[in-house]
Amino acid sequence: MTAEAPAGRSDARLARLSLNQRTCAEWSLREAIDGCVRAGLPSIGLWREPVAEVGLATARRWVRDAGLRVSSVCRGGFLTGPEGAERRAAIDSNRAAIEETATLDAATLVLVPGGLPDGDRDLDAARARFLDGVAELVPVAQEHGVLLAIEPMHPIFAADRGVISTLAQALDLAEQFPAETVGVVVDTFHLWWEPGVEQQIARAAGRIASYQISDWITPLPPDALLSRGMMGDGHIDFARFTEWVNRAGYAGDIEVEIFNADLWATPGEEVVATIARRYLDLVQPHADR
Amino acid sequence: MTAEAPAGRSDARLARLSLNQRTCAEWSLREAIDGCVRAGLPSIGLWREPVAEVGLATARRWVRDAGLRVSSVCRGGFLTGPEGAERRAAIDSNRAAIEETATLDAATLVLVPGGLPDGDRDLDAARARFLDGVAELVPVAQEHGVLLAIEPMHPIFAADRGVISTLAQALDLAEQFPAETVGVVVDTFHLWWEPGVEQQIARAAGRIASYQISDWITPLPPDALLSRGMMGDGHIDFARFTEWVNRAGYAGDIEVEIFNADLWATPGEEVVATIARRYLDLVQPHADR
Repeated sequence: MTAEAPAGRSDARLARLSLNQRTCAEWSLREAIDGCVRAGLPSIGLWREPVAEVGLATARRWVRDAGLRVSSVCRGGFLTGPEGAERRAAIDSNRAAIEETATLDAATLVLVPGGLPDGDRDLDAARARFLDGVAELVPVAQEHGVLLAIEPMHPIFAADRGVISTLAQALDLAEQFPAETVGVVVDTFHLWWEPGVEQQIARAAGRIASYQISDWITPLPPDALLSRGMMGDGHIDFARFTEWVNRAGYAGDIEVEIFNADLWATPGEEVVATIARRYLDLVQPHADR
Repeated sequence: MTAEAPAGRSDARLARLSLNQRTCAEWSLREAIDGCVRAGLPSIGLWREPVAEVGLATARRWVRDAGLRVSSVCRGGFLTGPEGAERRAAIDSNRAAIEETATLDAATLVLVPGGLPDGDRDLDAARARFLDGVAELVPVAQEHGVLLAIEPMHPIFAADRGVISTLAQALDLAEQFPAETVGVVVDTFHLWWEPGVEQQIARAAGRIASYQISDWITPLPPDALLSRGMMGDGHIDFARFTEWVNRAGYAGDIEVEIFNADLWATPGEEVVATIARRYLDLVQPHADR
């Protein structure tokens, strides 16, 4: 890879840093790829919608030609609905997402669990249906050599987006399947508060499919979906968290995923520069040891 | 008590319903007491500040004369700071709160754990300091016969308000002390999402110092502190939750604590009427069995 490495890729300390493209939501896929290359980031997290806009083959070629890795594809999941046409459509969409992930040579497909169906208050049942959905997708993922990454989400999203709320709970599910097919996402924003998370990260050894970072900031921005902050702007101890993930043997990409209205109003170039700086300051010294 | 019961107190099904006075934030203490009596609510949750405004002796007399119980006093806690003058002031404030709770003949003093100190990212240490603070207050509480109620808070508040995030974690702390002195608050808003909460509520038998209710609504209101909803407006299954609390042997007051800007803009009379209606519809049938 170093032989064809673009000129910008000069700092070996960025060798694990990935930009989730929704962090720079105003950028097109082309712009995000170019932005990563210019900033010396070797990896990118892709979303299905912007990939579909340019077409899968084109996206694949662009990423390859730029010499980037695809750290993750966002997103499958949303598997909490009851049996019926909608659930079948969700399963089909996940099958397609698995195929796309394989085509993009991505390491992993992130599964966002999904929330409670409209008017449904049975959280246990929704959680059970998510598990059933994962079980149904496992053979498809195995066929395509794709790693499904269950993303436990901050309880702020338990009702409307992600019924799996802790790393412990995500591991209880993932451990029912082979480690090469079902893993977990360890995301600082979602998990930093979890009692015993250090022990759960150790337990996750061999199951960490993705390590994603962003900060928990206060006061919490008004839109919960856009409430993530830049590393260093909030309350998360990235040194300790990264050491725990490191100690669990995870040596893959470290993906920055920040949804934040202020950040989206900032030029992507500037955002990526800040990310690289904060990464080198707060994360990298604890990741590469 | 029934002999002197005010005229409004007619519906026996409201016999466990308590209004946390901050639910009707625009009401003075006098108005809140009168509002409870008119609506037939036999119990009220008091806050220290409005009690201090009229004076402890007056507040005590008003509540007694109205024939109301005091289901809880809000609040002590905020015990996460490092040793020093501020922490000593917090301890002193908690001592005073314990004395006030005893004077008001209240069942319980709610302890809000407190958040991370400014610029401090060591959540484990903050949690440990909270535990130390509780330990220091236990002899004071014993002396006054007051039950300290540790309130595990939704992880949305872990950074700035409550570092104790699950009922499991609160019980791990409470169980280090005698059950007659340290209990837990079971609050639907804070705990509805917790994996295994049914088992934790069963484990809490004999430790449930307060059962508080409000709903988790989406989209989440912009101010996290004011994001609670009226029972029935959101995603929480009050039937199941109440049955679990019931099964754990809790037979005390059921306190409605809703912080919500829309509700605060609604006349208190109307709010209390809605509370009574929703309580009878969603909670009471599962509480009194």
